[in-house]
Amino acid sequence: MPTITTVRVHDVRFPTSKTLDGSDAMNKDGDYSASYVVLETDEPGLAGHGFTFTIGRGNDVVTETSRQRALPLIGRDVDALTTDLGGIYRELASDSQLRWLGPEKGVVHLAMAAVMNAVWDLAARRAGKPLWRLLTEMEPEEFVDILDLRYLSDALTRDEALQILKHARPGRMERIRDLQARGGYPCYTTSAGWLGYSDDKLRRLLTEAVDQGYRHVKLKVGASVDDDIRRLAIAREVIGWDANLMIDANQVWDVPQAIEWVSRLAEFRPLWIEEPTSPDDILGHAAIRRAVSPIGVATGEHGMNRVLFKQMFQAEAIDYCQLDSARLASINEIMAVYLLAAKFGVPVCPHAGGVGLCELVQHLSIVDFVAISGSLDGRVTEFVDHLHEHFVDPCVVENGHYRLPQSPGYSAAMHEQSVVEYEYPSGSYWAAQC
Amino acid sequence: MPTITTVRVHDVRFPTSKTLDGSDAMNKDGDYSASYVVLETDEPGLAGHGFTFTIGRGNDVVTETSRQRALPLIGRDVDALTTDLGGIYRELASDSQLRWLGPEKGVVHLAMAAVMNAVWDLAARRAGKPLWRLLTEMEPEEFVDILDLRYLSDALTRDEALQILKHARPGRMERIRDLQARGGYPCYTTSAGWLGYSDDKLRRLLTEAVDQGYRHVKLKVGASVDDDIRRLAIAREVIGWDANLMIDANQVWDVPQAIEWVSRLAEFRPLWIEEPTSPDDILGHAAIRRAVSPIGVATGEHGMNRVLFKQMFQAEAIDYCQLDSARLASINEIMAVYLLAAKFGVPVCPHAGGVGLCELVQHLSIVDFVAISGSLDGRVTEFVDHLHEHFVDPCVVENGHYRLPQSPGYSAAMHEQSVVEYEYPSGSYWAAQC
Repeated sequence: MPTITTVRVHDVRFPTSKTLDGSDAMNKDGDYSASYVVLETDEPGLAGHGFTFTIGRGNDVVTETSRQRALPLIGRDVDALTTDLGGIYRELASDSQLRWLGPEKGVVHLAMAAVMNAVWDLAARRAGKPLWRLLTEMEPEEFVDILDLRYLSDALTRDEALQILKHARPGRMERIRDLQARGGYPCYTTSAGWLGYSDDKLRRLLTEAVDQGYRHVKLKVGASVDDDIRRLAIAREVIGWDANLMIDANQVWDVPQAIEWVSRLAEFRPLWIEEPTSPDDILGHAAIRRAVSPIGVATGEHGMNRVLFKQMFQAEAIDYCQLDSARLASINEIMAVYLLAAKFGVPVCPHAGGVGLCELVQHLSIVDFVAISGSLDGRVTEFVDHLHEHFVDPCVVENGHYRLPQSPGYSAAMHEQSVVEYEYPSGSYWAAQC
Repeated sequence: MPTITTVRVHDVRFPTSKTLDGSDAMNKDGDYSASYVVLETDEPGLAGHGFTFTIGRGNDVVTETSRQRALPLIGRDVDALTTDLGGIYRELASDSQLRWLGPEKGVVHLAMAAVMNAVWDLAARRAGKPLWRLLTEMEPEEFVDILDLRYLSDALTRDEALQILKHARPGRMERIRDLQARGGYPCYTTSAGWLGYSDDKLRRLLTEAVDQGYRHVKLKVGASVDDDIRRLAIAREVIGWDANLMIDANQVWDVPQAIEWVSRLAEFRPLWIEEPTSPDDILGHAAIRRAVSPIGVATGEHGMNRVLFKQMFQAEAIDYCQLDSARLASINEIMAVYLLAAKFGVPVCPHAGGVGLCELVQHLSIVDFVAISGSLDGRVTEFVDHLHEHFVDPCVVENGHYRLPQSPGYSAAMHEQSVVEYEYPSGSYWAAQC
């Protein structure tokens, strides 16, 4: 009966602002960072790893908040914890003093994500399975018990969630074999289209993406409409008109401006416009969607919690749900959103990139296909090819597909050497900058 | 030309959990706290004071975040700052790395509120006027320039905001005299109705409230419907049926449950049900409002930002807007919400209580009546009678009205002795607890 003995939380920052990887119209100079949680146990080799993702300043306060949220885990029996994963979630979420600082949004919720991601990694390692397998092998009743359905019952009752899971149950093994046969879960790349890249670099990276088998590529837009038109023309020239082109404005527009700007880019036939306005603006997204159809509307990487997504679905505001695996409070909340999406018929194409988000979302997408929606229609998962070298069990992408992870856990463990080097401000990289 | 020389930020916590002041169905044991910001200048006697309000744990991370957000203020010329209060707001808000942790919600936004509240206090002190007077004396164009209208233009354009202010302009002096003549701005009390109080204490406090001239009282509900019925019966017995009774559930219900529970309390004819469900649930509040009419729906103390309030108005979700002076990012954002509310015809009854919120909201309510809505219809400002002894210029409430503040500033300065005693964990009170 292993016990959690220690919680370590590290402020890890990578100096991505130097290369403009990740640059867009809103976020010009992010240093991709993680609040990285390690739950150590007294069983040799057994630990849980989780994180949330930020872009630099403030990662220290997220780290401190994660530490506070994780404190109740010290001394817990691992088996008691991992056989009641709904219970520990509700216990940690019920801290009413920390709840006041959200509720369920911003720093306290990012910290909840980091801590519960580590708990889920621990549960999967204890079970000796990759997380996607642990989840897809659960009985429907067991799966529903881990969900946070609070505030959702006007859109999704517990019984409805159960019915969706039961409906998907018979074909599970077949769908796993289907994914294996097609080389994994389909993905698209954002690596080519960062706003800070030159036209030459854009053209070269798009050409590489096509050569690597991608059928979807995404470009950042929203700083200058003339630049956008020029860059989208380059993109269509390289990828042709049969491949899918997505555009992403990272929240820079008001609603009327979004409608006008996107209309000027419509000739390039984008599949979706991502984050056209404030991520909080449900009714605004609905208005934009009505105006720019047949261009789809996508959002979610800043979607703060399940209550926001519930309303996005109720208001018919989005064509694609891009939930974030390190902003929502881990599997307990994420899977509730997947079930909502399945009920409302909206495909989930999770946000990835950042630090380690690709490692997490591959598990989510597999669970969706195998145990929830049973469908790949309209679904494609983001992939950004950077920072994977810091992970012990990095995602493997080939021919535009995420290969199914095989190692136990949530693929969330970082190399200790990366922590030693990039911990802020004491790690060897940062110490050398001073 | 005074200059800001130092920023001090203090984690101040009062041990209110001991007496159950502030207890409700969601928040059972809060220690009312403030991240308290002091902007010191090189001019003797000139400083800016601001804070945000929390209920205990996590106040340390809000304090650290406030410190980070305030750093760019050090070395600034006070007059340059206070003559471009829109500019400094936009500059602080544009930190894209901190923005990632919200955006504009949770801890980073609470910290923005604390810092900008201090800037506004400094501006009013530098002008030698109470803040309500500084704001009501602004020209409409000047007033619009300080507003954060980003993401609002589908509901309120700059021109529309200007028209509302111009429309209210002629009667300003007369309305100030009107408030003075009636003894101030009308308020209601929550001090009687905390959930942790016994029936005897409830009866005694309600009797006192009636004797003190209150025409509105508020009770906490939502833990047990039988208890609620018993307590509301006591309330009607004491205050009669002509006075107004409000009820507050502090977010404990799902939407269907809210409708059912409130229907069971309808016989007591509450004026409003406050926070019936998640503060993020715009469509949920709209559904509840349709179902429980003529009981009004009120929410806002956890309303995270102006984009949420915009949608609450667009969706006709609330009858009363209870914005919070320490959760929205100070005057720049608060006044944008007041203008939205005026356009949509929704009265603003700001949330107060906590630590020092009453001191702040008295200014807001006066500005609304004098320079924006020009109306007192349906408007009543919360008052909770605790912790005022820690403020240098506490609000004065008599006969159910907030007297107009006369001292320069935003009434936000705390006694230095209170900081010395209640700073956490080093202050003399907390050090003695260990």
